[in-house]
Amino acid sequence: MSESNAVLIGRKPVMNYVLACITVFHGGAKEVNVKARGRSISKAVDVVEVVRRRFLPDVKVKKIGIGTDQLASREEGGSPTNVSTIEITLEH
Amino acid sequence: MSESNAVLIGRKPVMNYVLACITVFHGGAKEVNVKARGRSISKAVDVVEVVRRRFLPDVKVKKIGIGTDQLASREEGGSPTNVSTIEITLEH
Repeated sequence: MSESNAVLIGRKPVMNYVLACITVFHGGAKEVNVKARGRSISKAVDVVEVVRRRFLPDVKVKKIGIGTDQLASREEGGSPTNVSTIEITLEH
Repeated sequence: MSESNAVLIGRKPVMNYVLACITVFHGGAKEVNVKARGRSISKAVDVVEVVRRRFLPDVKVKKIGIGTDQLASREEGGSPTNVSTIEITLEH
């Protein structure tokens, strides 16, 4: 799957990302990858649930993966910070 | 799996729930079910990542499920609210 099918969840409202997912599916994609880090993880689940339940009932959750990204410290010599990640693959 | 193996994520610090998971595994359980709703979903992923990476490297993520719970409105006659849920099954 090409990376252009990824929807990265950030600080915008849930419906912005719902629309992004729908647009990718309507463009002919068979899969969409919803990705988030840290506090946005909850929003990623909201996005997927709204897409499936309200707009595209044929879409299934194919796979959910979680992990940890290590971020370099902002201060010089500081220790790196860990942030949790989620990747939810939706399939049409 | 009995429900006593469930760890429900709420408002306490991440390490409280990490300790809860470790305690359940040390009590002989083969599986632990980490459950959360709404904003606590991000914390559930943090808990699982800390358990696996820092304390119990043999523990694997067996299954991750997401869904929606419908909550009755607080006001009489109000419409119900939807809240996203996650359930992460860990296996020793």
